[in-house]
Amino acid sequence: MLPCKTLMNTRTNVNGLNMEKETTEKAKKRKIDEDDNEDKAREESVTFAGFKVKAVINENARQKYLFLHCKKNDEDAVVLLEKTPFDSSMTDQILSDNTKIRETLQNDIYHTYTAFLPANLNGVKATVICPASEKHIKKYTEQESFVIQETAELYTKVTLPYLEKHSFSTQWVYNILEKKKEADRIVFENSDPDTGFILLPDMKWDGKDLNSLYLQAIVHKHGLKSVRDLNKSHLPLLNNILEEGADVIDQEYGIPKSKLRIYIHYQPSYYHLHVHFNHINLESPGFDADRAHLLVDVIENIEMNDSYYQDKTLVYRVREQDELYKLYQDEGYFVDFPINTSLSSNSSFTAAS
Amino acid sequence: MLPCKTLMNTRTNVNGLNMEKETTEKAKKRKIDEDDNEDKAREESVTFAGFKVKAVINENARQKYLFLHCKKNDEDAVVLLEKTPFDSSMTDQILSDNTKIRETLQNDIYHTYTAFLPANLNGVKATVICPASEKHIKKYTEQESFVIQETAELYTKVTLPYLEKHSFSTQWVYNILEKKKEADRIVFENSDPDTGFILLPDMKWDGKDLNSLYLQAIVHKHGLKSVRDLNKSHLPLLNNILEEGADVIDQEYGIPKSKLRIYIHYQPSYYHLHVHFNHINLESPGFDADRAHLLVDVIENIEMNDSYYQDKTLVYRVREQDELYKLYQDEGYFVDFPINTSLSSNSSFTAAS
Repeated sequence: MLPCKTLMNTRTNVNGLNMEKETTEKAKKRKIDEDDNEDKAREESVTFAGFKVKAVINENARQKYLFLHCKKNDEDAVVLLEKTPFDSSMTDQILSDNTKIRETLQNDIYHTYTAFLPANLNGVKATVICPASEKHIKKYTEQESFVIQETAELYTKVTLPYLEKHSFSTQWVYNILEKKKEADRIVFENSDPDTGFILLPDMKWDGKDLNSLYLQAIVHKHGLKSVRDLNKSHLPLLNNILEEGADVIDQEYGIPKSKLRIYIHYQPSYYHLHVHFNHINLESPGFDADRAHLLVDVIENIEMNDSYYQDKTLVYRVREQDELYKLYQDEGYFVDFPINTSLSSNSSFTAAS
Repeated sequence: MLPCKTLMNTRTNVNGLNMEKETTEKAKKRKIDEDDNEDKAREESVTFAGFKVKAVINENARQKYLFLHCKKNDEDAVVLLEKTPFDSSMTDQILSDNTKIRETLQNDIYHTYTAFLPANLNGVKATVICPASEKHIKKYTEQESFVIQETAELYTKVTLPYLEKHSFSTQWVYNILEKKKEADRIVFENSDPDTGFILLPDMKWDGKDLNSLYLQAIVHKHGLKSVRDLNKSHLPLLNNILEEGADVIDQEYGIPKSKLRIYIHYQPSYYHLHVHFNHINLESPGFDADRAHLLVDVIENIEMNDSYYQDKTLVYRVREQDELYKLYQDEGYFVDFPINTSLSSNSSFTAAS
C-alpha cells in the first residue's frame, strides 16, 4: 500500500522492545524540537479553518489512520491523519494524574476505561497536500483489490506479453550490480556472474533496529524476471542466496536463520530476480501468502519438479489501478465474478441445504 | 497474537469504507452512552493514581498499543493502552477550530503538522487487570518467535508424536458437525461423510461487515489432522470446499471468488481439517506466508504429486511458550542458531568480500 508506506517510513524502527535507549534519546530530541517550535505555533495558532471535507478516501482501524479529500477555498486538498504510537519512554507521564480516565466496564478483576491523555502525549500526525492534483487524490484513495489465479496459460497469454512489451527499465539495478551506485551500502557480494548476488539493506530499513531488519539479495545474472523463469539450472544460485545470505546476516547482525523470513515476491515490484530477507518480528504486508514465496519452498519445489514454476498456477493480488488488473479485465478474466459488496438481501439461494 | 485478538475484536468490522451508515449509527449510540457515563465520571474523577510502571511488556507502533506491567500498592496489574481509531462520522469536528495544529515541516505543496484534537475525539482505550496473576502478565508479554523448517523426518520424529500424545479434544468440533451446537449459525452444508463439510461464520466475524468476512469450512471426515494428512484421495473433498464454498459465499453475501482468500493453516489452531475463507480486505496475521497455504495451491500440489504434503518441508512460526517450540528445542533444533538480537559489534566477519 503506497500511501501507508509513506506514513510508515517514520516508524518501521519501533517494532520491538530492544530499543529503549534509542527511543528515549529520540524522545528527548523530539521534545527539544517541539519546545523550539512552540513559540512559533503560539504565534500562528493554526487550525484547519477553511478546510471542508468532501470525502473519506481511506481509513484503517487497525493502524488508526484516516485520509480525507477536502476543499480549501476552491482548491483540492488531501489531509492524512494518523494517530501516533505511544512513546514508551514516557510511561510515567502517561499514567500521571494529568491523565483522566472514565470507566466503561467493570467485571471482576477486569476494568476498561476511556483515558484522556495530556495533549502533548496524544498528538496526531497530520499531512496536508494542498493544492492536490487528481493524481494525489487517487494515490491516497483506497483501491479495490482482486485475486488473480494466473495459470501457465494465462501467464503466456496475458502476463508475459505485458512484461515483454514494457521491458521495464532495470538500469538502476544494473547500476547497483556494477557498483556505480550504492556501492558503500553493499553488505556482501558473491561475484560469480551466474550464481552470485549482492546483498544490501532495503531502503525501508533504517539499518539499526534489528527487529525490522530488511535486506535484499539481487542476483548478478540478467534476464531472470521472476520465479516463473526459475528451474533446476538456477538451484546453485538459489542455494547460494539461502545459505550465504543467512550466514552473512548471522555473522554481521547476529540474527540466526530461525529468526529470518527469506522469500521472493510474485508479482515482484521490479522484474530482475531478487530475494527479501526480513526479521521475523517485522510486520510487513509483503509477507502475505498471496505474494510471498518462501525461498526454501521455491528450492524444494524445483527439486521435486524442474518445471514447477512454469506449470504452476500462481495466485496474487492486483489493485484496480494496476496495469495487470486492466489486462486481465480486458481478457474477460473477471467476467464470471460480478462485484457486489452489499449484502444481497433478495438472494434466492437457500442456505444450509 | 492472543493479546491483540482480544483488543481487536471490537474493531474487525471497520476495515473498509462501505460502512458509513452503520458507523454513524454506532457513533451516535456511543455518544449517548458516553453522555450517560459523564456524570458518573465527573463524580469519580478517576486517574491512574497509585499505579507504578514496572516494565513495558509489549508495544506496537503500527497498531499503536502499549502494554504495561504495573504495581498498585502491593498488587500486580496489567495496563493495556491502545489508541482508538478515528471516527469517520466526525470528520467535521476533527477539522474544526477546536483542533489546534503545529507545523513541523513545509515543502512546496506538502505540509506536516502535529494536531491536537479535542479530548472527546482522541480518547485512548485502557484495559486494567488488577490484581493480575503471573499468567496474565505472561499472556500480554511479547513472546519471542522462531521459524521451524519441519522436514518430513522432523514431522515423524517430533511433531506427530506430540499430536498423538496429546490427542487434543475436538469434541467441540464434533458438536458442531452433529448439530448439537451452533446449528443456527450454519451457512451451508454438504452432508457427505467423506467429501462433505459445514460452512459457518468464524467467531471473529461480526457477520455483517463484508470487508472483514470470515467463514470456516469444517470437514465432516474425522482423522484429518492437517495438510500433512492430505493426498489424492482427498481431492474430491478439497474441490467441494473450494467450489461450493466460494459459490455459497457469492450467492449468500455477493462476494465473488476474486475477492476471497481461501486457505489452510499449518500449524492449525485445532487438529481437525478446516479451511478459512476471508474477504481480501481483511487484514489478518493468519494470512502470513509462513502459516497460510492457499487451497488452490494445496489441490494443485497434490495433483502434481500424491505425497507432496508428506514429503515437503513445511515452514511455520512458533512462539517461545508453544509446546512445539520446547519440543524442537529439546530435539536440538535451535542449537545451531544461537539467539542474539543485539548488534555484534566485535564480529570478525569481513563484509563485502
